[in-house]
Amino acid sequence: MSSSPRIRGVLAPVVTPFRSDLSIDMELFATHCRRLLEDGVGLAVFGTNSEATSVSMRERMDAIDALRSAGLPGGRMMPGVGYCSIAETVEMTRFVLDHGIESVLMLPPYFYKEADEDGLFAHFSTVIERVGSADLKVYLYNIPQYTQVPLTPALVGRLLEAYPGTVAGLKDSSGDWANTKALLDRFGASGFDVFTGSEVFLSNALKLGGAGCISATANVNPRGIRSAYDARGTWQMEEAQARADRVRQAFQSRPLIAAMKHYLASRYQSSDWRRLRPPLSGLSSQQASVLDAELSEIGFE
Amino acid sequence: MSSSPRIRGVLAPVVTPFRSDLSIDMELFATHCRRLLEDGVGLAVFGTNSEATSVSMRERMDAIDALRSAGLPGGRMMPGVGYCSIAETVEMTRFVLDHGIESVLMLPPYFYKEADEDGLFAHFSTVIERVGSADLKVYLYNIPQYTQVPLTPALVGRLLEAYPGTVAGLKDSSGDWANTKALLDRFGASGFDVFTGSEVFLSNALKLGGAGCISATANVNPRGIRSAYDARGTWQMEEAQARADRVRQAFQSRPLIAAMKHYLASRYQSSDWRRLRPPLSGLSSQQASVLDAELSEIGFE
Repeated sequence: MSSSPRIRGVLAPVVTPFRSDLSIDMELFATHCRRLLEDGVGLAVFGTNSEATSVSMRERMDAIDALRSAGLPGGRMMPGVGYCSIAETVEMTRFVLDHGIESVLMLPPYFYKEADEDGLFAHFSTVIERVGSADLKVYLYNIPQYTQVPLTPALVGRLLEAYPGTVAGLKDSSGDWANTKALLDRFGASGFDVFTGSEVFLSNALKLGGAGCISATANVNPRGIRSAYDARGTWQMEEAQARADRVRQAFQSRPLIAAMKHYLASRYQSSDWRRLRPPLSGLSSQQASVLDAELSEIGFE
Repeated sequence: MSSSPRIRGVLAPVVTPFRSDLSIDMELFATHCRRLLEDGVGLAVFGTNSEATSVSMRERMDAIDALRSAGLPGGRMMPGVGYCSIAETVEMTRFVLDHGIESVLMLPPYFYKEADEDGLFAHFSTVIERVGSADLKVYLYNIPQYTQVPLTPALVGRLLEAYPGTVAGLKDSSGDWANTKALLDRFGASGFDVFTGSEVFLSNALKLGGAGCISATANVNPRGIRSAYDARGTWQMEEAQARADRVRQAFQSRPLIAAMKHYLASRYQSSDWRRLRPPLSGLSSQQASVLDAELSEIGFE
């Protein structure tokens, strides 16, 4: 059905840089995207760690248009396109397809917590049918700590049966390894690509046929996580995993997006990187000092 | 500062009727809005019980434009304008102001659960400053069971101090009377209008200077709730409150939006009213029969 190969490996939910007027700094954004690609990491632009819900649909569209016009490859992108409304999810999905991007990461509607399996099936199936493209590859986005709407194995099974050419996989950001394992055990063999939401589960997931990880810290440690992925099936894997875990631990011990932006401000020598959009905010100077010290201690600079 | 009087009394988060292709049925919608106004109830279009987050911004704008063009008064409307992004909240708020509507109900950004008081203050203050209208009256919308982002008295105090002419009130849908009472005790005397999210708290809130209620069941029992409001301060109040409570109880004992739409399908003799947008769905026939029987038992038909 689909016209291009599936994305596998390591992707970053690309953090989004903002100018002082809070607009997206496209130059910094494109530079960071290029650097990630060079380091072997795909671009899950406008995910949770991109502050996607703080970015308007118009801004997301303009940014994707700019990245594609700048020559960044659509085949290595998996933008977030999930809105609470069917109409907006369809509009955003069609837009990225029209820009040569076939893989999309799709949140469930996340306002109504009483959404049940039938309701979620109706939502996703209406979206898929209205988009109506054989090229589309939908990756369901399970992140119940933000949505309070878990995507159950039963729902995944129904969607996969109804749209086998389109429902391509799932990103499991539940943080619950038992859930990721259940999805791999049940659907892995059918060509359904399960990505973990953190590299800490990468080694275990790859052993069970996982497709890779889509992890925040791939923004700051792309080579480290990529080298763990590349070492799969070899004796070096566990050591590479352990190294990546130490970096992860340092970043996730404080507000994660703010911590990554603090680090990127140094890497790219641009203090604009430190800015977050409300309702989120940057690290305090004390948090920043402790993070710097911890990163220095583990030799990550 | 502001050019028209404050809204007080009873408002309905107007339920939204959908055709079989899921588009808004504007004829049914306008008819229902007119009927509510005749029954003394204001129009909080595109609130939680309107399935607002399942309706795109474009659809909300088109519907508001159509209602205003049909002559419905902007002074009796309080549309939902709160998005997770500052840009979309500003765009929707400016749109309604441009359509002669000054009062808006504003959700907090509801995706990032780690949003703190400083972050929420920054969000709302940026919105208010970017809209930049002396006519604007913002009603904060506290509905933590859906947002997981409570609007604390400390936050309300800061916003009220910074924007006394603009931060006009709050709808408290927490369902926690202690919270509503705390808001009334602390801010009621300063002209800050507290609306309860359900008529069950109406009598108690009015005694403490509350402004009224914005309640789902005002869609189905507008006269009953309005008569309780009109009886405030008289010996008839408690009896009217008790009557309204019995109706409320029957509807809220099943999925509330679906139950109201089932009832309105009979009232307006249009089965289109029974339709909800995914991820929500209508009553089962068994739920519908039990509701009909309960309504009949309490003499509400």
